[in-house]
Amino acid sequence: MPWFRKLLQVSSSSLRKASPLNPRYIFSSNYTSQTGGLEPTKPNEKPRVVVLGSGWAGCRLMKGIDTNIYDVVCVSPRNHMVFTPLLASTCVGTLEFRSVAEPIGRIQPAISTAPGSYFFLANCKGIDVDDHVVHCETVTDGVDTLHPWNFKIAYDKLVIASGAEALTFGIKGVKEHATFLREVSHAQEIRRKLLLNLMLSDVPGISEEEKRRLLHCVVIGGGPTGVEFSGELSDFIMKDVRERYLHVKDYIHVTLIEANEILSSFDDRLRQYATKQLTKSGVRLMRGIVKDVQPQKIILNDGTEVPYGLLVWSTGVGPSSFIHSLQLPKSPGGRIGVDEWLRVPSLQDVFSIGDCCGFLESTGRPVLPALAQVAERQGKYLAALLNRIGKDGGGYANSARDMELGKQFIYKHLGSMATVGRYKALVDLRQSKEGKGLSMTGFVSWFIWRSAYLTRVVSWRNRFYVAVNWATTFVFGRDISRI
Amino acid sequence: MPWFRKLLQVSSSSLRKASPLNPRYIFSSNYTSQTGGLEPTKPNEKPRVVVLGSGWAGCRLMKGIDTNIYDVVCVSPRNHMVFTPLLASTCVGTLEFRSVAEPIGRIQPAISTAPGSYFFLANCKGIDVDDHVVHCETVTDGVDTLHPWNFKIAYDKLVIASGAEALTFGIKGVKEHATFLREVSHAQEIRRKLLLNLMLSDVPGISEEEKRRLLHCVVIGGGPTGVEFSGELSDFIMKDVRERYLHVKDYIHVTLIEANEILSSFDDRLRQYATKQLTKSGVRLMRGIVKDVQPQKIILNDGTEVPYGLLVWSTGVGPSSFIHSLQLPKSPGGRIGVDEWLRVPSLQDVFSIGDCCGFLESTGRPVLPALAQVAERQGKYLAALLNRIGKDGGGYANSARDMELGKQFIYKHLGSMATVGRYKALVDLRQSKEGKGLSMTGFVSWFIWRSAYLTRVVSWRNRFYVAVNWATTFVFGRDISRI
Repeated sequence: MPWFRKLLQVSSSSLRKASPLNPRYIFSSNYTSQTGGLEPTKPNEKPRVVVLGSGWAGCRLMKGIDTNIYDVVCVSPRNHMVFTPLLASTCVGTLEFRSVAEPIGRIQPAISTAPGSYFFLANCKGIDVDDHVVHCETVTDGVDTLHPWNFKIAYDKLVIASGAEALTFGIKGVKEHATFLREVSHAQEIRRKLLLNLMLSDVPGISEEEKRRLLHCVVIGGGPTGVEFSGELSDFIMKDVRERYLHVKDYIHVTLIEANEILSSFDDRLRQYATKQLTKSGVRLMRGIVKDVQPQKIILNDGTEVPYGLLVWSTGVGPSSFIHSLQLPKSPGGRIGVDEWLRVPSLQDVFSIGDCCGFLESTGRPVLPALAQVAERQGKYLAALLNRIGKDGGGYANSARDMELGKQFIYKHLGSMATVGRYKALVDLRQSKEGKGLSMTGFVSWFIWRSAYLTRVVSWRNRFYVAVNWATTFVFGRDISRI
Repeated sequence: MPWFRKLLQVSSSSLRKASPLNPRYIFSSNYTSQTGGLEPTKPNEKPRVVVLGSGWAGCRLMKGIDTNIYDVVCVSPRNHMVFTPLLASTCVGTLEFRSVAEPIGRIQPAISTAPGSYFFLANCKGIDVDDHVVHCETVTDGVDTLHPWNFKIAYDKLVIASGAEALTFGIKGVKEHATFLREVSHAQEIRRKLLLNLMLSDVPGISEEEKRRLLHCVVIGGGPTGVEFSGELSDFIMKDVRERYLHVKDYIHVTLIEANEILSSFDDRLRQYATKQLTKSGVRLMRGIVKDVQPQKIILNDGTEVPYGLLVWSTGVGPSSFIHSLQLPKSPGGRIGVDEWLRVPSLQDVFSIGDCCGFLESTGRPVLPALAQVAERQGKYLAALLNRIGKDGGGYANSARDMELGKQFIYKHLGSMATVGRYKALVDLRQSKEGKGLSMTGFVSWFIWRSAYLTRVVSWRNRFYVAVNWATTFVFGRDISRI
């Protein structure tokens, strides 16, 4: 067992040296003691890239890393990448959950086969930038027979790609009563609740009012995710519920609440089209700002009470508490500040990509939107950069100090897409909100949308499965088993 | 809403009349008050068959019921049938969970479309055999915004098909620490634990001993389910773990513990073949009786301690606490006693099928084994019987008292099948343990096994999916994302 030989018992001296008061020793919360870890690499070993996170950014990076140059170690609380743009479809059974999840070992096979590469199911708890070490705690997920334990990993290069968190704007009750739509487990929860409510509303003894409440699905936030989920849901209602839950078909409704305009980043004409299509397919659009979320209703700023059976919260993302806790330079908005090469400046060998990073104000560049597209492009760029550094002999810790890094990262927006229900989609190919360019609606867009996503699904296995899922849904309708 | 018109407010007099002391009023536990229900059918309505349960027996019955004659109401805590023989394959990712679950609305479409037919997500709490009423409580599954409520359903014909429970023989800790393999949720739990243990065992800081424990999968019970699960698991280890979890491949082991012989219902030669194949594929067979189950180890009768990371309990089934609580005539072994026509004798219009029933001693027939095959045949038989009764005008409550019922139910065993890992299976076509007949092993059996199950999967949708799953596993290997 090669890794076992690298096991490191932390000496008491190394613990004494580091202290949370030392600003170079960056800690998150609840840090206790450690039992082992991966030692710094030796000259006869490959340099080690440690990646925190397994989202679009981290996975694209790992896919691109040359494993002849580097060993790759990934630390994340989930062992797969979620294909987020298709997550909304899994809630109503159009796609299987498994079709939108890609195991990391399939994205970068070295992770599970190369002797020095690993995936660790853990959360990062702190970073010791002087010693080039990250401190981690295992995720044990409610298994009562095992306590989480701490370990540390020495890195040659560190890439922070741990993503962002759903924004709740400090509104009370959101975390308790609403469901986000960012992980497969969220989609599973939405599906279970939706099917439970459908079945409960059919049981005798329920009042008309309670029935309407149970079958009222409220979506907060009119960005692409909120719009796509509303569209999928009303599609499911129009097509499947009316056939299979005939008893309750007149009671189920979808309401989309947004403080401003839906799809605010899209072209005017596309926005109008989306509004028309959503309304036509039965989604009620409502202007409002949520003040309070209670177990069975939400209260808006103007005092309106909206009873709900299912509440999906999709108002964008912001820096996570982990990112907050790191004492690193920050970008406007509180993300980890990076320079034009996605480095965390003033530190050696630390990079950040994806939703958790943003350009420092000093770069004069805007913070990029939290989009899969941005994260993926950054992952790809950084993989190439690290490969070049490694090839030029700068792979080990502190060995790339004065190296010429070459081309800066430049983001070019390729356009935005969103579905608005059955066989309808928007494609906005303008490069910025003010720019000129192609915008499309309707069936052709929807076809482009499906094709674009199908070719971007990472593995052939899942491409095949997504295609099979779509075909099956088309022929047999959606699956409604509540498992 | 037709059902809404049938809503019935229970008058206090009807509650006063019935009391748990009255032996005709058969109650289970925790019965409180009711808020509504389905009234007795009127002469201008179709008679109503109420089916308790949605397993093999109940679903085969509902599939066969002529919905031109009857309305069908199903009461069950799950809205789908589980294709149990393939459940073991879902734990390791050979099949998707959804492929082995069939929504009831797809088995009997009238349930979701006919005005008088329903599916209720609920548990039956008691039966009032004099008034022809069942008392139910909704399943709300931890949703904190809704309290379970009670309702009652009047029946013309009642079919109790609520199945059996896993036997624990009163051994301490089984329910807390072991996982059964009877529902899709069990398979999901096994999969989550297995993948969690695989990932945790790779994290630095874990001792050699703890690693061996985490990766030790113990199966208790050498019946077909235990043997098939052990085979699937060792197949997964041989084929997928060795490739994808290279770091831990030498630590993972499967042990099958059985008090007597494995596959005791099979032919001697088949048993020897199974033993040889399982041993060859790395399953350790162990004789032993479990005395105590602790969080990380089991203790056998002879004092041996067996540490485990995953414990699957599969020692057969027995009468559930619901069946126990019903004051009905019982068969040897405590199941609901039925006569040759699957009626509960001395009561009007009450039938029982599947694992929860057994022939009364007075019939002179043996209690049939708890097999899908038996349950399915009984469901089919009873559907035909009820259709004939309905056609002859005996569909309503108390209207078939002196009717000639025709052919008795006779069970003819068609043979048993079990897989023992990769491309190997057993097929035993003898009609009884002592009988003569064909028995087969090896690849041909395995092919028969797959084909037989594939054609028996209820819907074309799932047949298609099971075939696609098998093909994908063959080409791409198993899915290992832990979602």
